[in-house]
Amino acid sequence: MKKQFIVIGLGRFGSSLTKTLVEAGHEVLAVDKDIDLVQSMSSIATHAIQADSTDEEVLKELGVGNFSHAIVAIGENLQSSILTTLLLKEMNIPKVTVKAKNIMYGKVLTKIGADQVVYPERDMGIRLGRQLSSDNLIDYIELSPDYNLVELNAPAAMNGYTIQQLDVRAKYGVNIMAIKSADGINISPLAEDKIQTGDTLLIIGANEDISALERKYE
Amino acid sequence: MKKQFIVIGLGRFGSSLTKTLVEAGHEVLAVDKDIDLVQSMSSIATHAIQADSTDEEVLKELGVGNFSHAIVAIGENLQSSILTTLLLKEMNIPKVTVKAKNIMYGKVLTKIGADQVVYPERDMGIRLGRQLSSDNLIDYIELSPDYNLVELNAPAAMNGYTIQQLDVRAKYGVNIMAIKSADGINISPLAEDKIQTGDTLLIIGANEDISALERKYE
Ligand SMILES: Nc1ncnc2c1ncn2[C@@H]1O[C@H](COP(=O)(O)OP(=O)(O)OP(=O)(O)O)[C@@H](O)[C@H]1O
Ligand SMILES: Nc1ncnc2c1ncn2[C@@H]1O[C@H](COP(=O)(O)OP(=O)(O)OP(=O)(O)O)[C@@H](O)[C@H]1O
Ligand SMILES: [Ca+2]
Ligand SMILES: [Ca+2]
Ligand SMILES: [Ca+2]
Ligand SMILES: [Ca+2]
Repeated sequence: MKKQFIVIGLGRFGSSLTKTLVEAGHEVLAVDKDIDLVQSMSSIATHAIQADSTDEEVLKELGVGNFSHAIVAIGENLQSSILTTLLLKEMNIPKVTVKAKNIMYGKVLTKIGADQVVYPERDMGIRLGRQLSSDNLIDYIELSPDYNLVELNAPAAMNGYTIQQLDVRAKYGVNIMAIKSADGINISPLAEDKIQTGDTLLIIGANEDISALERKYE
Repeated sequence: MKKQFIVIGLGRFGSSLTKTLVEAGHEVLAVDKDIDLVQSMSSIATHAIQADSTDEEVLKELGVGNFSHAIVAIGENLQSSILTTLLLKEMNIPKVTVKAKNIMYGKVLTKIGADQVVYPERDMGIRLGRQLSSDNLIDYIELSPDYNLVELNAPAAMNGYTIQQLDVRAKYGVNIMAIKSADGINISPLAEDKIQTGDTLLIIGANEDISALERKYE
């Protein structure tokens, strides 16, 4: 279903968000007080407008109340984020997501009505940290604080072994859900399927069990 | 295996990265020219030092050549990022990862020796955009440009149906790899297993097939 978004603040985060929403088929009104950023988004966003989002009159003229979801991507200026969030909620936008600099700012934003607070820099710091901590980790989905689904480069020491020979379920309590190779993705691999260098594995399990497996095959 | 990292620039991204690396058991030397940021990291990082990373003498005193991996998390100042990257590569650090403001800066950084360039704000903009585009998407792993593993809130319209009744493999060409419920995670669910409201599904498939499934159960 096509939705109407308004994105306020077209820095690195807000502009990338705008582009992704438009590519997914949604309408996006992109707003920044900086005319250069507005111009650079004019061919990407459905509409791109220069405006100061802390100005109530301006927001009313933009018909802000008709949007289903607003994202406030003003990162550094708490005062502007607060004022903008307050105005948007007063105009009855059902969902307002706000980018915050840190947890303290996030708490303030929640108190004044933000429906969702995001911390992109912190989250990407965690993501990169986890990738660099492991030699093989490509990506992951956190299923619970201690249970993950991970995408791993198959360790060289697994090369040529079958699922049965490795027997990671019995040895480490983790499950190989899929093997991605040059030939495509093998979903629910069989006991006799072989792992080759260059393959990517999708493994589900407790974090400590996945770590134990990784250490073993390092 | 314990590694030695040096993180230069302790903004939101660099400080979160430092914390994650330390929590994973690695040693981190955290550097910023801003003494307040250095102090706030002093109880988290293995060592936290105030220094200007564009000063060659300073880097030598820090024994930078002994680290296996440096991350330059200076976002806004291209000149400082370039100079820092050059110096680190001259001192033979095997791997230097640099945070860049945009693709153009990224190209420059690669040319002068950066081994990896990251764009945290852009990447999180894409991630949030994908989440907001879908009513059910929680997280995902991109396996290839058109093939994803997604974590979805089970759509309300699936409530009470078994895997066999839904038959998403035949109807949409996608596979339900696991069902997460209050009871835990059901890996490789059986034909008779039921989906309940509140469950989370792990589904693997082509992007367009997953989108078709989502639209159907919207
Ligand atoms: N009151 C306002 N009205 C409209 N736009 C604003 C307002 N205040 C700030 N902005 C815009 O928000 C954008 C993002 O703000 P800022 O640069 O402070 O955040 P940031 O966290 O550094 O962003 P990023 O990391 O995404 O690049 C800027 O382009 C700025 O012009
Ligand atoms: N030459 C330098 N030596 C040491 N630290 C530096 C140098 N130049 C910048 N820094 C530090 O790098 C940090 C991050 O830089 P900056 O604020 O420009 O990036 P940013 O992209 O806004 O960061 P973030 O989004 O992670 O908060 C700052 O704390 C700054 O003091
Ligand atoms: Ca900025
Ligand atoms: Ca900054
Ligand atoms: Ca930033
Ligand atoms: Ca990926």
